Amino acid sequence: MRVVLDGMGGDNAPMEIVKGAVEAAELIDDEIIIVGREEEIRKELRKNKYKGDQISIVNANDVITMEDSPVKAIRRKTDSSLVVALNMIKNGEGDLLISGGNTGALVVGSRMILGRIDGIDRPVLASAYINFAGEPTIIVDAGASSESKTVNLVESGLMGSIYMEKVWGRPNPKVGLVNLGVEETKGTTVTKEAFQKLKKADINFVGNIEGREVPSGAADVIVCDGFVGNVILKLSEGLAMCILKMLKQEFMSSGKTKIAGLLMKSRIEGMKEQFNYEEYGGAPVLGVNGPVLKIHGSSTSMAVKNAIVKGIPYASNKVVDIIRQAILDLQEDIEIEV
Amino acid sequence: MRVVLDGMGGDNAPMEIVKGAVEAAELIDDEIIIVGREEEIRKELRKNKYKGDQISIVNANDVITMEDSPVKAIRRKTDSSLVVALNMIKNGEGDLLISGGNTGALVVGSRMILGRIDGIDRPVLASAYINFAGEPTIIVDAGASSESKTVNLVESGLMGSIYMEKVWGRPNPKVGLVNLGVEETKGTTVTKEAFQKLKKADINFVGNIEGREVPSGAADVIVCDGFVGNVILKLSEGLAMCILKMLKQEFMSSGKTKIAGLLMKSRIEGMKEQFNYEEYGGAPVLGVNGPVLKIHGSSTSMAVKNAIVKGIPYASNKVVDIIRQAILDLQEDIEIEV
Repeated sequence: MRVVLDGMGGDNAPMEIVKGAVEAAELIDDEIIIVGREEEIRKELRKNKYKGDQISIVNANDVITMEDSPVKAIRRKTDSSLVVALNMIKNGEGDLLISGGNTGALVVGSRMILGRIDGIDRPVLASAYINFAGEPTIIVDAGASSESKTVNLVESGLMGSIYMEKVWGRPNPKVGLVNLGVEETKGTTVTKEAFQKLKKADINFVGNIEGREVPSGAADVIVCDGFVGNVILKLSEGLAMCILKMLKQEFMSSGKTKIAGLLMKSRIEGMKEQFNYEEYGGAPVLGVNGPVLKIHGSSTSMAVKNAIVKGIPYASNKVVDIIRQAILDLQEDIEIEV
Repeated sequence: MRVVLDGMGGDNAPMEIVKGAVEAAELIDDEIIIVGREEEIRKELRKNKYKGDQISIVNANDVITMEDSPVKAIRRKTDSSLVVALNMIKNGEGDLLISGGNTGALVVGSRMILGRIDGIDRPVLASAYINFAGEPTIIVDAGASSESKTVNLVESGLMGSIYMEKVWGRPNPKVGLVNLGVEETKGTTVTKEAFQKLKKADINFVGNIEGREVPSGAADVIVCDGFVGNVILKLSEGLAMCILKMLKQEFMSSGKTKIAGLLMKSRIEGMKEQFNYEEYGGAPVLGVNGPVLKIHGSSTSMAVKNAIVKGIPYASNKVVDIIRQAILDLQEDIEIEV
C-alpha cells in the first residue's frame, strides 16, 4: 500500500502533516509519499529526526489555498500538491490519498481527475460521528454539496452502508434518513421520494430519524443533504464543547465542587476524547474512482496519523470497487434516473 | 388580557392544560378561557380544586389529532377546540391563543383563519433555545414549513428580530443566518440571496453563522429553514440528554466518582434545567394576524403555565402590529417580491 499525503493542505501544513506521517510510519509497514514543496517537507522531516526510507517526497511547487475557488484552482493550479497527488492516484502511483486542504477543491478535484463511479450522480463526504451507544456512526453527506436531489440521498444511503460495513466492520448497518418526523409522509419532496427509494434498495433502511436520534445510535449510517450534515457535525461539536465548558465552570464554583472535579478529572478527560473528531480518522469522498480521504483543515499530527492508519482498510478492502458493483445492482433494482 | 387555551391539544390534554391554567391563575390577574369538551375540562378543574372565576370554559366537541392532515382538519373539523379557539381570536373574543396540538394544523389554521400579515409570504415558528452565554436565543423557522424561499428567510430575520426585542427585551438583537461557512459566497442559492437581502434590511445582521456557533450566543436570532431549525432543536435536545446520561454513568462508575456525584448533584440539576425547553414558554407563529403560541405536544402543566405567563407580553406588547408596520417598511427598503 502506498499512502499519498497532500503535504501542503490545511492550516498546519506541512508541519503537522509531516509529523503525523513520521508517527504513522512507526505503526505501519506501508509506504508514505508526501506531495508538496520538497525543501519545506524535507526540513520538517529533519526536525522530526526522520532517517528511514518508508517516507518519500514528490515535489509540487504550487498550493491550493482555502480561499481558492475549487473548479478554477483544479484547472489552473496543475502543479499544486493536491492536483499532483490526485494524478498519482489516477495513474496508479499511489493507493490512497489524504488531504486536509480546501474541501471543495478536494471533492471537485476527485470528481474531475479521478472521475465519478459509473452511475453515480454526485460524490459525497462520509464523516464519522460521536455515538453514545459507544460505536461510530457515519453522516453522509457531511458537506460535499449544499443541496441534494433524491438520487444523491439514495446514493448516500447505499455508499454509506457499504463503507460502514467494509471499513468499520458493522455487518448490515442500519441506515436512517434525517427528517422532520418519523412518518414517511413527513419532510420535503426530496426526502419523501428518497424514503420510498431507500426502502426498495438492498440495504437495512430503518426509515426516518429525527435530529434527537442522531447521537443515540438509532442508525449507523445517517443520510442527509450536505447542508444538514454540516450543521449536524458542527452543532454537535459546538454543543459538546459548550456543555463540557459549563461543567468545568460548575466544578470550579465552590470548594466542594472543586473536590468533585478532582475526583472526576480522568473521567471527564475520557468524555472529551469521545468528542474529539481527530480520533476517528478521515472522511472519504464516496462515489469517485479512487480512495480519497478528507481530514479537518486544522488537523494535528495525531489526526494525520489516525487518518493514515485507519484509512488503509478503506483502500485495501477495495471499497471503491464494491461501491461500483453495488451501484450497478442498485440501478437494476430501482432504476435511478441519473 | 384574555388568554385562550386549546384544551384538547397535545398528548396530555386536557389534564396538564387545565392544571397549568390553574397554576398560572395563581400568578396572573388575566382571564383564562379553556376551549374544548366542557365536561372533561370541568372534571379536571374539579380535580385541581379550582373554585374561582378567572378561568372559564368554551365548549367545542371535536378534536384535531396529531394524525390529522392539517388543511383537511381545519376545513372540516369546524367544531374542534383549535378552530373554535382561532375563531375567538379572529372575532376579538380572546387576545392570545396557546395550543399544544398538531403543529401543522396550528400553523395552517392560523394562516387560514387569522390570515397572513399583509406582505408576509409564509408564517414561521420562532422557538427559544439554550444559549451558553446565559440568555435565550431564538431559532426561526423552527419547523412551520420544511422548505424556505429567500423571502421566507428574510422575513424570519426581520420578525425574529422584532420578537426578540419586544418580548425578550434584548435591544438591537444580533441576527445570524445558518450556513456552511461564514463567507457570504457559501451555501445554497437561497442562503446566498438571503444573505444579501438581510444585509440591507433594517436589523442588526451579523452574517452567516456555522452550526458550531448556534449554542454559543454568537447570534440572538438564528435564521434557517424549517427543516434545519427542526434538526437544530431536536439534535440539541438529544445531544444534551446523551451527554448528561454519559456523565451520570461516569459518576456511577466507582466509589470515588459516586462521591463526586453527590457533591455535584445540585449543580447537575441546574444544568438539566437549562436544557429543559418547558422553561422557555411557547413558540409564536410569526406572520399571522394574531398572537398564537405553540407549545410542545408533550407539555406538562409547568410548560403550560410558563407559556401563559411568558406569552402575555407577546400579546400585550402588540408584537403583531409592530411586525405589520415593519414589513411595510421593509418592502419599501428592499422590495421583496411576494
